[in-house]
Order: sequence, then C-alpha cells, then structure tokens
Amino acid sequence: MKLYSMPSSGNSYKLRLLLALLGQAYDRIDVEYGSAALAEAHASGALPFGKAPALHLDDGRVLAESNAILCYLGEGTPYIPADAFERARMLSWMFWEQNQHEGVIAVRAALLQYPHRKADATPEALARLLDRGNGLLQIMDDRLARHDWLAGTALSLADICLYAYTHTAETRGGYDLSPFPALRNWLARIASLDGYIGLHD
Amino acid sequence: MKLYSMPSSGNSYKLRLLLALLGQAYDRIDVEYGSAALAEAHASGALPFGKAPALHLDDGRVLAESNAILCYLGEGTPYIPADAFERARMLSWMFWEQNQHEGVIAVRAALLQYPHRKADATPEALARLLDRGNGLLQIMDDRLARHDWLAGTALSLADICLYAYTHTAETRGGYDLSPFPALRNWLARIASLDGYIGLHD
Repeated sequence: MKLYSMPSSGNSYKLRLLLALLGQAYDRIDVEYGSAALAEAHASGALPFGKAPALHLDDGRVLAESNAILCYLGEGTPYIPADAFERARMLSWMFWEQNQHEGVIAVRAALLQYPHRKADATPEALARLLDRGNGLLQIMDDRLARHDWLAGTALSLADICLYAYTHTAETRGGYDLSPFPALRNWLARIASLDGYIGLHD
Repeated sequence: MKLYSMPSSGNSYKLRLLLALLGQAYDRIDVEYGSAALAEAHASGALPFGKAPALHLDDGRVLAESNAILCYLGEGTPYIPADAFERARMLSWMFWEQNQHEGVIAVRAALLQYPHRKADATPEALARLLDRGNGLLQIMDDRLARHDWLAGTALSLADICLYAYTHTAETRGGYDLSPFPALRNWLARIASLDGYIGLHD
C-alpha cells in the first residue's frame, strides 16, 4: 500500500494520522507543493482528480479524496460507528468539513502561507474568512461542549478528519481559539492518543 | 420521516430524487431561499449546520448534509456497492462533489440566478468558474466514456449526487455540454430511470 502524501497538507495528514493510530505500515511518497515529485505524480496519472492524497493498493487500484480514503482504511475498525444513524452522523461532519470547513479554515491558512496564493490574500478576503471561520469553530465547540467526540460516543473518522485543519487554525490560519474551550480540550484529547503523530512527524 | 427541502437547490433535489427512485413516502417541508418557512426552520433549530436539506426521523433524531443523508437512506439498497473498495470509490465522487463540483458548477448557477448573489457575479468570476467547471465536467466525461456509471458497474449514490447540479449546468450555470457526449448520455440514462422525478416535480 502506497500513499501519495503532501507533507504540508491537512488532507494528507489525516491519512498519516489514521494509519499511525492503527499502527498500519505503508509506503509514503512525499509530493510537496511545487516539487518535482508532485509534477511527476501528475504526469504519470498517479493522482485521480489531479490532487494529493491518493492511495495506491498493491493490486494497482487507486483511491482519491482524503475522506473517502479514511472511510476505506477505517472499515472494520472502532473508528466507524456500528449504528447506521451514528455512521451517517459521522459522514455529515466529514461532508461538512469538505464543503464548509476546509474552504474557509484551510484556505485562510493557505492564503497566509503559500507564496503562490499571496495575490488572493487581500485584507477583505482575510477578514471575511476570519469571520466565517469563527462561526464554523463555534459549531464544533457547541457540539464538543456537550460531547467528548463529534459523532457518537467514541473517537471516529469525523474527529480525525476535522482535527487536521483545526489543530493548525491558530498557528497557520491566524484564528484565536481561546473563545472555544471545548474545542481546545478536544484538540488536546486527540494529541494525547496512543500512536498520535503531529503534522511534521 | 420529514425532509426540510429547498425547492430550487440541487442538494435538496438529490434526496427527493433518491426517495422517488426508492418509492419511499415522506413528509416534505419546503424552505425556499428568502421564505418565512426557512426563517422559521432556522429559528426553531430544525437545520443543523444552518443549512437545508435536513432529515428529521420520527423519533426526533436529525441528520444534516445532503450526501450523508443519501448514505443513510441508501443503506441496504442496490445504490451502495457491496464491495468495500467500490463503496469507497462511490464516496470519493461524493466528497469531490462537495469539495470541487458544487463550489464551481452550483456556485456559477447561483451567481446567475439568485438576486442576493448579483454583486459577486463579476465577468472575471464568471469566466473563472466557467473555465474551472469545464475541467470538472471533463473529469466526469472521461470516466463516463469508459463506464456507464461513476462508481462500480451500476447506478449508485455517486450518480444521484452528481446528477443534481450537473443536469442544470447548461440551463442554470451557462455551461455548454456539447463537448461532453458521454456525460450527456449519462444524464439521459438517469432521466429515463423508473421513478425518476425532475427538479420541479
């Protein structure tokens, strides 16, 4: 099993984190933004939909989209709730992450961080993303003030998925997490899990 | 079972289409943009994440996010592949839809259609969305030139999900579908299914 992974990207980190928590071995091919390795991966067709991450199975089958890969790797593990409704609730957080959270929290970090995005990093755009992002963090904090985990009663793929860009919202996205105490406790709970690895581990 | 559904929205239409194909009865509450019914649904907390659609079960449990609701309603039907890898491939199209396709194809239609979005409908924005959207439609056409359906060998939730905003890409989004013959054949295949309903049926 081979993972095409962008070291700086939360979407790739989700998968590295799940694989670490599961203690599962795999080959990792780093395709950082702007690298020759990424250009080569694009040229060879290794990245369906033209994006990292991508998972290549030993039999040649290829899977794209970070959250779909989480679901595939999570099959048969305790990170997917057994109950059909709770499983759908987990998915609702994961679709929300791709439709709402990533397009705001990760995009603000990208505007601040990547040189090729500088032109889009206007004060108006950054202010709008800050305001919208605070609303999204509030939705997570509201849930986490009443429950330890985002879906069901245990750690699930929803937590691993949303941890990726949320845990760097402060350092890379410029968000202030002090108004969100339940969310900060949840971040600490995940960072203390057996097998946990950080973004750069 | 009660569905809060926005009549003009592809995300709500997905669910109406699946329920029609399944022949499943439900109560439908229309919450059109700008309506008193939508304001009331927001005020009563009927819409988790602040968005339609939302599914309310008879026991009071509530589920948000169109694609998560598709997964819940699709459990145990032929619209979810039995094989774990094919199921993950279905999900990869569905996450791609929420992360890429909807933010381009549906957004261009919204800019052209909704009065409150007029300010964002600059010629530059519309040109950029046209160009990006054509790239996304090409990805679908490439797959559909080789296979009848987006995932696996039969109609799945991925097809229902991506049909919603693709079938109005021409009439509402201003895209020209003539360069995408396989995609057009796929749209016709879905429209001829037993039980099919259109956006306004």
